[in-house]
Amino acid sequence: MPKVTIAQNILAVNDTVAQEIRQMLTARGIRVINMMSSPGAGKTTLLEKTIERLRGCVGIGVIEGDIETSADSERIEAAGAETVQINTRGACHLEAHMVRDALAQMDLSHIDLLFIENVGNLVCPSDWNLGEDTRVVLASTTEGDDKPAKYPQMFASSQVLVLNKLDLLPYVDYDLEKAKRQALAVNPRLQCFEISCRTSEGLDAWCEWLMAFVQHAI
Amino acid sequence: MPKVTIAQNILAVNDTVAQEIRQMLTARGIRVINMMSSPGAGKTTLLEKTIERLRGCVGIGVIEGDIETSADSERIEAAGAETVQINTRGACHLEAHMVRDALAQMDLSHIDLLFIENVGNLVCPSDWNLGEDTRVVLASTTEGDDKPAKYPQMFASSQVLVLNKLDLLPYVDYDLEKAKRQALAVNPRLQCFEISCRTSEGLDAWCEWLMAFVQHAI
Repeated sequence: MPKVTIAQNILAVNDTVAQEIRQMLTARGIRVINMMSSPGAGKTTLLEKTIERLRGCVGIGVIEGDIETSADSERIEAAGAETVQINTRGACHLEAHMVRDALAQMDLSHIDLLFIENVGNLVCPSDWNLGEDTRVVLASTTEGDDKPAKYPQMFASSQVLVLNKLDLLPYVDYDLEKAKRQALAVNPRLQCFEISCRTSEGLDAWCEWLMAFVQHAI
Repeated sequence: MPKVTIAQNILAVNDTVAQEIRQMLTARGIRVINMMSSPGAGKTTLLEKTIERLRGCVGIGVIEGDIETSADSERIEAAGAETVQINTRGACHLEAHMVRDALAQMDLSHIDLLFIENVGNLVCPSDWNLGEDTRVVLASTTEGDDKPAKYPQMFASSQVLVLNKLDLLPYVDYDLEKAKRQALAVNPRLQCFEISCRTSEGLDAWCEWLMAFVQHAI
């Protein structure tokens, strides 16, 4: 099966680069989060709100992964964080070598916490290590409560689940408990946050968790 | 570049199978639509509403593509259409050989219109022909109005755009005109429908278009 062997080789090379990234960033005391979700689940908006709240307390950097456009890195820069945009030009996920190249363009001296915002895709990014310390998957209340069961690998490979867009619950058919139950069935160790970036509900708990994460308290 | 050559060979084999599917279904007078979108944009709900409205007028079949679960095919069966579930077990898109195998399990004798509901993914499915006559991409108002610019290949390779979840417009920051403008910049020939499956807004126009499509009037 040459196809499988090649895929394994590509992933093995990716893992090696990811390991180098992890070692380099760990040596600098930088904690790294790989943010993943469907398109439009709210990754960039959550990062904007997070930067607003933690500015002055934590040095935040963001690597923005998109197929095309620099729209997200412009939003992050406007929010006040160091950022580099990766355009994958068609590729459906970030790979470690892209992150390595982006890091070479960043001034890391003031960064304590680095977010890598992956391409919006609930499938492929879960296969690719980027040197992160932890993975956060966002799911929004407008996507349907069946997503953890239908896309299990993304939830199985993450440590944190952010259930976003709580403010839209009155207007959609979404069973929050069902979604959490399905996610925990796939991955009983998932830590869950329920958030609305629009109303700020749940952002305090999220930011407290991030502070503890940066301080190696978790 | 062996990696590129192998990818090209795989896509060429897929195109050959897709062409066989197209010829077989054309010979039977069956029209085929490949439905694509992000996870949770509303593909299955739109199909449920479509089946309810066209039942008795048009014989509808649905091939359901999901990574895991048979939840969607159960919904489609309950709505009253012939359906077969494909579980890709991790793969991020449908391929033509999966559709060929699914068709072998279907009674095609009463089908005029076949929907293939692809895996929820705004990137990878656009590379894979499934023997469809046309491609419909759904985008929902909760995903953000920047998606056509950020995921251009999906919009460039489709003939029809369904802007879904119009009922949520009052509760989200979504510029419908901007989304359409971006989509038409990527693909000026896109036919656009604005729909709410919740309120039924726009479903008449969508179903009229489907009837014309089945009758080869477009």
